[in-house]
Amino acid sequence: MTLAPEPSQLLQQKLLYRGSKFSFEVMPCAYQMAPRGLAMYSSPRGALAVPVTDEGKLVLVRQYRFAAQGRLLEFPAGTLEPQESPEVTIEREIAEETGYRAHRWQKLGQFFLAPGYSDEIIYVFLAQGLELLETPPAQDADEDMETVLMTPAALEQAILNGDSIDAKSICAFFMARPFLNHSS
Amino acid sequence: MTLAPEPSQLLQQKLLYRGSKFSFEVMPCAYQMAPRGLAMYSSPRGALAVPVTDEGKLVLVRQYRFAAQGRLLEFPAGTLEPQESPEVTIEREIAEETGYRAHRWQKLGQFFLAPGYSDEIIYVFLAQGLELLETPPAQDADEDMETVLMTPAALEQAILNGDSIDAKSICAFFMARPFLNHSS
Repeated sequence: MTLAPEPSQLLQQKLLYRGSKFSFEVMPCAYQMAPRGLAMYSSPRGALAVPVTDEGKLVLVRQYRFAAQGRLLEFPAGTLEPQESPEVTIEREIAEETGYRAHRWQKLGQFFLAPGYSDEIIYVFLAQGLELLETPPAQDADEDMETVLMTPAALEQAILNGDSIDAKSICAFFMARPFLNHSS
Repeated sequence: MTLAPEPSQLLQQKLLYRGSKFSFEVMPCAYQMAPRGLAMYSSPRGALAVPVTDEGKLVLVRQYRFAAQGRLLEFPAGTLEPQESPEVTIEREIAEETGYRAHRWQKLGQFFLAPGYSDEIIYVFLAQGLELLETPPAQDADEDMETVLMTPAALEQAILNGDSIDAKSICAFFMARPFLNHSS
């Protein structure tokens, strides 16, 4: 049941906005159910790490999000640069966002984040063998975040309590759970 | 740890695109970490149902998604009309998308879908006491989907297998699991 591609015909592509982090391109598509076309926007892909310390704690960041007008709990993640592999992206992002380097990586899967209007795919990795860097790389100038260590049980309870956690982090936790020590 | 609002100052708001389903509004925001502003877009909110039959099967839809150029497995969901409550939205959408009416509803929570660039919030409901309507309402003309019944165990395996399931549906399943019969 993996995705069987069914390309729709691209009618035209129009760049509406180019920002420092992403751009919106509206692309009306021809399709038998919508002969006049529907709009979507194209997005760079993302990579996310579920970092687990040797003690079984999860490493998350509490990050200010303009769109949410507040702070959300999220796993470290970032946007793929052009021609970059998700593996390279996430090694950079975990260091910048949490100050950790991971010595063991495992790919857990991927998902579409908001397929109703975006083609963004998030690749998810389990990051273990963590080493706290003595001199972590600088965070992006426009990021405002702090590192948070939690047990898997505490994160599960936070999600079920309705705390402010974003969708990609909930999905990634779901994918990582079979590999986590549930007693911790 | 619920969201403590920290409003940033809105510098200007510019409508770039208005479509039949959503519009993109780019809103540079003033913020101490990014004095020149950052962009985001505003989106209507969404509502999603995790429908469970009396036999413990989950009701999903396999839906063609332009952005994914293929078919994804998703829980029924839809966009809130202006001034509409999520409860009203999801009662309409579950009927249109699956042909079921639910007689027992329970709110499970909500999450930000893509807070890196969007303010979209998805509200999640558990829908039980399902009745298959003799005359279901018409689907939206531009939707191409079929109903799929699965056990919770089969859906969990599909997610861990990396099948084509979207983020909001994985999150909603995570929130619903404590209320599902795991033996089914």
